[in-house]
Amino acid sequence: MRLDQRAQADMRTIHFETGVNKHAEGSVLISVGDTRVLCTATVEEKVPPFLRGKRQGWINAEYAMLPRATAQRTGRESVRGKQTGRTMEIQRLISRALRSVVNLEKLGERTVWIDCDVLQADGGTRTAAITGGFLALVLAVDGLIQSGKLTDTPIKEGIAAVSVGKVGTDLLLDLCYEEDAAADVDLNLVMTSSGKIVELQATGEEATFSRREMLDMLELGEKGIEELLQAAEQALGASWWYVGEEVEHR
Amino acid sequence: MRLDQRAQADMRTIHFETGVNKHAEGSVLISVGDTRVLCTATVEEKVPPFLRGKRQGWINAEYAMLPRATAQRTGRESVRGKQTGRTMEIQRLISRALRSVVNLEKLGERTVWIDCDVLQADGGTRTAAITGGFLALVLAVDGLIQSGKLTDTPIKEGIAAVSVGKVGTDLLLDLCYEEDAAADVDLNLVMTSSGKIVELQATGEEATFSRREMLDMLELGEKGIEELLQAAEQALGASWWYVGEEVEHR
Amino acid sequence: MRLDQRAQADMRTIHFETGVNKHAEGSVLISVGDTRVLCTATVEEKVPPFLRGKRQGWINAEYAMLPRATAQRTGRESVRGKQTGRTMEIQRLISRALRSVVNLEKLGERTVWIDCDVLQADGGTRTAAITGGFLALVLAVDGLIQSGKLTDTPIKEGIAAVSVGKVGTDLLLDLCYEEDAAADVDLNLVMTSSGKIVELQATGEEATFSRREMLDMLELGEKGIEELLQAAEQALGASWWYVGEEVEHR
Amino acid sequence: MRLDQRAQADMRTIHFETGVNKHAEGSVLISVGDTRVLCTATVEEKVPPFLRGKRQGWINAEYAMLPRATAQRTGRESVRGKQTGRTMEIQRLISRALRSVVNLEKLGERTVWIDCDVLQADGGTRTAAITGGFLALVLAVDGLIQSGKLTDTPIKEGIAAVSVGKVGTDLLLDLCYEEDAAADVDLNLVMTSSGKIVELQATGEEATFSRREMLDMLELGEKGIEELLQAAEQALGASWWYVGEEVEHR
Amino acid sequence: MRLDQRAQADMRTIHFETGVNKHAEGSVLISVGDTRVLCTATVEEKVPPFLRGKRQGWINAEYAMLPRATAQRTGRESVRGKQTGRTMEIQRLISRALRSVVNLEKLGERTVWIDCDVLQADGGTRTAAITGGFLALVLAVDGLIQSGKLTDTPIKEGIAAVSVGKVGTDLLLDLCYEEDAAADVDLNLVMTSSGKIVELQATGEEATFSRREMLDMLELGEKGIEELLQAAEQALGASWWYVGEEVEHR
Amino acid sequence: MRLDQRAQADMRTIHFETGVNKHAEGSVLISVGDTRVLCTATVEEKVPPFLRGKRQGWINAEYAMLPRATAQRTGRESVRGKQTGRTMEIQRLISRALRSVVNLEKLGERTVWIDCDVLQADGGTRTAAITGGFLALVLAVDGLIQSGKLTDTPIKEGIAAVSVGKVGTDLLLDLCYEEDAAADVDLNLVMTSSGKIVELQATGEEATFSRREMLDMLELGEKGIEELLQAAEQALGASWWYVGEEVEHR
Repeated sequence: MRLDQRAQADMRTIHFETGVNKHAEGSVLISVGDTRVLCTATVEEKVPPFLRGKRQGWINAEYAMLPRATAQRTGRESVRGKQTGRTMEIQRLISRALRSVVNLEKLGERTVWIDCDVLQADGGTRTAAITGGFLALVLAVDGLIQSGKLTDTPIKEGIAAVSVGKVGTDLLLDLCYEEDAAADVDLNLVMTSSGKIVELQATGEEATFSRREMLDMLELGEKGIEELLQAAEQALGASWWYVGEEVEHR
Repeated sequence: MRLDQRAQADMRTIHFETGVNKHAEGSVLISVGDTRVLCTATVEEKVPPFLRGKRQGWINAEYAMLPRATAQRTGRESVRGKQTGRTMEIQRLISRALRSVVNLEKLGERTVWIDCDVLQADGGTRTAAITGGFLALVLAVDGLIQSGKLTDTPIKEGIAAVSVGKVGTDLLLDLCYEEDAAADVDLNLVMTSSGKIVELQATGEEATFSRREMLDMLELGEKGIEELLQAAEQALGASWWYVGEEVEHR
Repeated sequence: MRLDQRAQADMRTIHFETGVNKHAEGSVLISVGDTRVLCTATVEEKVPPFLRGKRQGWINAEYAMLPRATAQRTGRESVRGKQTGRTMEIQRLISRALRSVVNLEKLGERTVWIDCDVLQADGGTRTAAITGGFLALVLAVDGLIQSGKLTDTPIKEGIAAVSVGKVGTDLLLDLCYEEDAAADVDLNLVMTSSGKIVELQATGEEATFSRREMLDMLELGEKGIEELLQAAEQALGASWWYVGEEVEHR
Repeated sequence: MRLDQRAQADMRTIHFETGVNKHAEGSVLISVGDTRVLCTATVEEKVPPFLRGKRQGWINAEYAMLPRATAQRTGRESVRGKQTGRTMEIQRLISRALRSVVNLEKLGERTVWIDCDVLQADGGTRTAAITGGFLALVLAVDGLIQSGKLTDTPIKEGIAAVSVGKVGTDLLLDLCYEEDAAADVDLNLVMTSSGKIVELQATGEEATFSRREMLDMLELGEKGIEELLQAAEQALGASWWYVGEEVEHR
Repeated sequence: MRLDQRAQADMRTIHFETGVNKHAEGSVLISVGDTRVLCTATVEEKVPPFLRGKRQGWINAEYAMLPRATAQRTGRESVRGKQTGRTMEIQRLISRALRSVVNLEKLGERTVWIDCDVLQADGGTRTAAITGGFLALVLAVDGLIQSGKLTDTPIKEGIAAVSVGKVGTDLLLDLCYEEDAAADVDLNLVMTSSGKIVELQATGEEATFSRREMLDMLELGEKGIEELLQAAEQALGASWWYVGEEVEHR
Repeated sequence: MRLDQRAQADMRTIHFETGVNKHAEGSVLISVGDTRVLCTATVEEKVPPFLRGKRQGWINAEYAMLPRATAQRTGRESVRGKQTGRTMEIQRLISRALRSVVNLEKLGERTVWIDCDVLQADGGTRTAAITGGFLALVLAVDGLIQSGKLTDTPIKEGIAAVSVGKVGTDLLLDLCYEEDAAADVDLNLVMTSSGKIVELQATGEEATFSRREMLDMLELGEKGIEELLQAAEQALGASWWYVGEEVEHR
C-alpha cells in the first residue's frame, strides 16, 4: 500500500479543465493528484529566425513553477536573473515531445508557444506539463481550423507522459513528491497513442538499475499513458477529432 | 453605460477563493471581473539582513504575470534575465501597502512573503494583488496564532486597493483593460478599513487633471474599497477575527 | 523651526545653472538646497521601435546617483549588473511627467533623452530631476528651433515637481534628507504652470493619512511648484519663450 | 558501411592521454574518433552549503565547448552572459553519472570538481565527457590515497558512456557528428563495469521508436561500454586498482 | 599649431576644485581643458575578504562616464547590465596607480574607494581620473589624521598622469578628443613626484612606433606630470603636507 | 640562477604545434615553458555593424582560461555570468596587437576571430596568446589565398609578444608564474619582425621604476621577441611566405 492508499500500478486522479484562460488560443489546467499545471497555447504568426522561409512551423514550450508551488518557497528565476538548469532541461523536453507528434510543415509558418506554469507541485510536474501542454496545443489547432487558417490538422497522434520509479524494491507508477524524493531510480516516459516511445529517460539517483527493472518500469508507464490518453480524449470532446485526423466537412 | 454594462460607480464582480494552495501558510485566488491573481503567503522564520536583531518582522511582496495572462503573450522575465521596471514598481507598492497595516514588532522576527501571480489580466492587477495579498496574509497570521507561534494578531486593520480613471470626460471606478488603455488619468487608491489612505497614486498619461477631478476620483475609490472590504470579510469568515483584534480565548 | 531654520512652508534655495555641458543639446545643473542634479537633454533623430512610422516623437528619461551622492557610499548599478527598482520607478516617473507637457506629434520623429544624474543627494532628488530635466528639455527645443528643425514649439506649458511630507504632526514643504527619513507620509507632486496636476503620489511609510492631510499637503506643494516655476522662468531667460508659445518671427 | 568505413556495431578509435595538466589532481585527454575532451579533476577540501556537516563529499561536473570545437564557431557562453540549456543539461548528467559510482561518505567532506572542456567536437561529446571524467576522478582518488588523505577508495566500480542512434532504418553505435545530425532517434547510455544501467536517455527527434528498437540500441550500447571500459583500464594502469577495490598494503 | 592654439608641449588649462561633495571624505573636480572628472574618496572601515586579518588597507577605484559626457550619448552601463572592457581596464589602472604611492600597512585595515565620474569628456579622462583621484585620496587622509584615526600619513609621494600621442609625424602632449581620435600612437604615463614611473602604456592603433619615438613621448609626458603636480600642490594647500611627510605636531 | 635554472636573459622552451583543430581555418598550440595556449582562427565572411560597407575587414580576439589552467581552480566566467576585467583587458590587447600588422583593406569584408584558450598557465599567457594567435592568423590567410579568396596577403609583417619583469633587483626575461607573482615591475612588450613596437605596457605593482630600468627591460624583451619570431618562422614553414610578402606565382 502506498502513502495515499494507491496500489503499485495505480495512477492518481487525473483531471483536465479546459478553457481556463480567456486570452489564450488554447488552455487547460491539468491536475494529477495534487500536482496542478496551467498550460496555455499561444499562436504566433511567425517562426524563429533559423526557420524563416523554410515553409514549416515550430513548437516552443516554456516551463516554470510559481514560488510557492513547492513545500518550501523557491525564489523566482526572474529575481535570480536566470533560469535554472532544471527548468531549461524540462522545457527542452516538453518542446521535443510535442514536436514529435506534429507535422511542422502542415502547421505552416507559425509558432505555437506552450506555457506550462506549475501552480502546485506534488511530483510529476514535467510529465503533467507534457500531457497538459498537448491538450492546449490541440485546442489551439482546433481554433486555427475553425477560423480557416488551417484546413488539415498538423497533429499526427495523441501524446502523454508519466513517471515511474523504484522506491526500495518496489516499482511504482506515477510518483507523488514523497515517493519521488525517496526513489533510487526515476523513469520518465513520453509515449504516443499508437504506443510508440517518444522519450524515455531512466536515471539512477546515486544508484543503478538492471535492464529487467527498466522493462518492468516501462510496462507500468505504458499503463499510465493509456489512462492519461483516455482522460484526455474525454476532456477534449469534439476537439479530439483533430488528433491525427484529416479535417473533413463536419 | 460602460463596455460591460456597468454604471460609472460599479465595481466588477468580486470573488475570493481561499485555501487554493496546499503548501502555503495562506492562499487566496482573487477575481475582480476577469482579472485573476493567485496570492500566497509564506512564513519564513528569519528576517532580511538589515533587520537582524531588531526584534521586528518584515513583509515582502513579489508580483509577476504568467506569459499569457495578457491578450498578447508577454515574454518571461526569467528568460529576459531581469524584472521590468513595472514589475518592481508594483511589488514595492504591494509591500509598502501591506506593511502599513501590520505591527512589525508584534509579528516577531519572521518574514511573510506575499507572492502575487497574475493568472489572467483584465485591468487592475496591482490593486487586486494588494487586496488578495492581504487575505493571504490574514490566513497566514491565523495559522501562526492557531499554532501558538503568535498570541496577538499583528494586523492593525483591513486594507484593500482599487483603481479609478478618467476616460474622456467620465470618471469610472474599477477599470477593465480597455478602459485602462483609453484612460487619460489613472488613480490607484490603497485604503484601510478605518478609511485612512495608505497610498494614492494619480497619474496623467500624457495628460493632466484638476484637484476637483482628483477628489471625485478619490470618492469613487472609497466606494470601491468599502465593497472590497465587505467581500473580504465575508470570504475570510472566522479568520477576519484577526484583522485588528487582539486574540482572546475563543 | 526646521533643522535648517526654515518655516514649514519654505522651499530651500533653488538655483539653476544652464549650459553646463558642452556636448548636450540642453543642460542644467539644478540645486535645491544641497541636492544637486545634473540634467542633460540629448536629441536623437529616431524613435523607439514601437513608434516607428507613427509621426510622433518620444521623451525618455534616465536617472542615476553617483556612488557618493549619498551619506554612505552606494554601490554602482553597473557593477551590480542591474538597476534597482527605485531607479526604474523614478525614471518612469520623470519620463511620464515630461511627456505630459509635450505635444509628441509636434516634436516630430525624434527622441529626446533626459539624463538626470544626482551629484549630491539631500532629499527630493526625483522631484529636482523632473524640474531640472524640464529646463534641459526646453533648452534642447530652443536649439531645434534655432536650427530650423522645428518651427513650432512642442512644449505645451511649464512643469515642476516638489516633495511634501508629514513629520510627526507637522506638514512640511520640500523635505531635506533627515526630514524625509523621519517622515510618516511622503507626497510627491508634479504640476504644470497652469495649475493642473500631472502626478500625485502620496505614500504612508508604515503609516496612513487622512483626506484632509492629503489636501493640506497638496496646498503646500502648490506653493513650492509656483516658486520653482518662477525660478525656472528666470533661469531660462529668452528660452522660456518656447514654453507653451508658438514660435513667431522674433 | 558507414561514412568512416565502420560497421554498424563498431566504436571509433578510443584513446586516453593521462596527466595532461600539471596543476590538476587528475587529468586526461579522451579522444573518441575526432571528438577530444580535456577532463580535469580538482579536489577541494570543502563541500557545498547544503552538505555541510553531513559527513559526506560531493562530485560536481562542469562542461563547456571551446568556441571552435564545432564546425561553425559558437559564441562563448561567458560573452553571452549565461550557459545554454544544453550545457546545463549535460553537466547535470555528468555529475549524476559520476556520483552513482562513488560512495560519497567514503569520499569524506570534500568536493571533486570534474571539468570537461571539449577541444574538438565530432559527436558524442557528452558521453566522452562522462568516460573521460571518470578517469580524471580515479586519478584524483589515487592521489588522495597516495597522500594519505583517504585510506579506502570511494569508487564503487567503473563507469562509461556511449551513444547509439537510429539513422534511417539502421541502428548504429557511437555516432559521429554527421550521423548524429541525421539520426531520428538518439540514445545515450551510461553503464557500470558490472553491467548495471546508470542512465538511459532515448529521444525521438521529431520521431518515435518502438520498445524493440530501444532494446536493440541498448544492446549495441552495452558492447560500446565494454570496449570503453577495457581501454580505460589499460590507460589507468595501476590506478585502476582504486576502481572498486579497498586499498590494501601494496 | 594645434587645434586649440597650443604648442606641441603645452598642457591644457589645469584646474582643481576641492570640497565639491559634502558627504565624501575627500572630493575634487578636476578640469583639464574641457575634460571634467568628479573624484570622491570614501573611507570604509573594512577591507576586502582577501585582505582580512592581514593588517593592511586597500585602495579601490571605480570609473564611469555620464551618458552625455561624450559628443554622442553613450548608453548607461547599468542599463546594458555590465561594465565595458574599457571601463574595467581604466579602473584597474587607476587602482594600481594610486596603490603604488600608498603604504598600505600604514593605511590600516580600511578601504579607500576612489570614484571617478566623468562629467564631460574631451580626451585624457583616465589620466585626469588618476590625477584627480590622488587629490581626493590626500584630502581623505588629511581627514583621517585630523580625526586621529591615523597618526602617520600612508602616502609615500605625489602622483599624476598624462597622455601623449603621435599624430601624423607630430608628438603632442595632453591630447584633446580630436587629437586622440586621429593619433597613431597613444601613450599614457603615470609618474610620481620623485620622477619614478608607475605605469607606462604605449599603444599603436593599427600602427607601430620606434624606441626613439617612445623616449621622446616619455619626455613630453614628464613635462606634463611636473605641471600637474605643481597645480595639485597649489590646490591642496596645507593638505599637501600629507604627501609623503610624516605627521608632526602642527 | 632562476628557479628553473635559466639565466636572466633566457627564454623558456618555445614550441608550436600547428593544425591541432580539424574545423578551424588556422590553429596552433603554443607552448612557452609550461604555459600552453590553444589558438584558433575562424574566418567569417562578414564584418561587425560599425564596419559595414567600409570595404575593410576586422580582427577580433577572445581569450579565456580553462578552470584548471591555474594552480587553484578558477570558476568559469560563463557560470559567473560575465567576463572579468582582466579577461577583457587581455582580449582587447590581443585584438589591437594583431590588427597592427594586418592591412584591413586587403583582408576584405571579412572578420577573423582569434580564440585563445589557455589550457595550462605558468606565466605569460597573454603574450603567448598574441604570439600563438598570430600563427593561427597566418595559417588562416594561407587558406584564404590557397582557396583564391585573397590574392595578396594582408599581413604586413611578423609579430610576437613577451614579458619581462623586475624581481628584487634582477631584470628577468619571460617570467614563469612564481617570478611573475614576486615581480615588482611587469612589462609586456609586443613587437614586429622589423623591430617596431606595437604595445609596451610597464606596470609597477605597488612599486615604481626608473627610465633606465624600463630601457633595460625593453632590451631584454627585444631579445625574446627575436627568438619567438625565429621559432614562429620555423613552425610556419611555407606559410611564413604570407608574412609580409605579396603573393606571387609559386
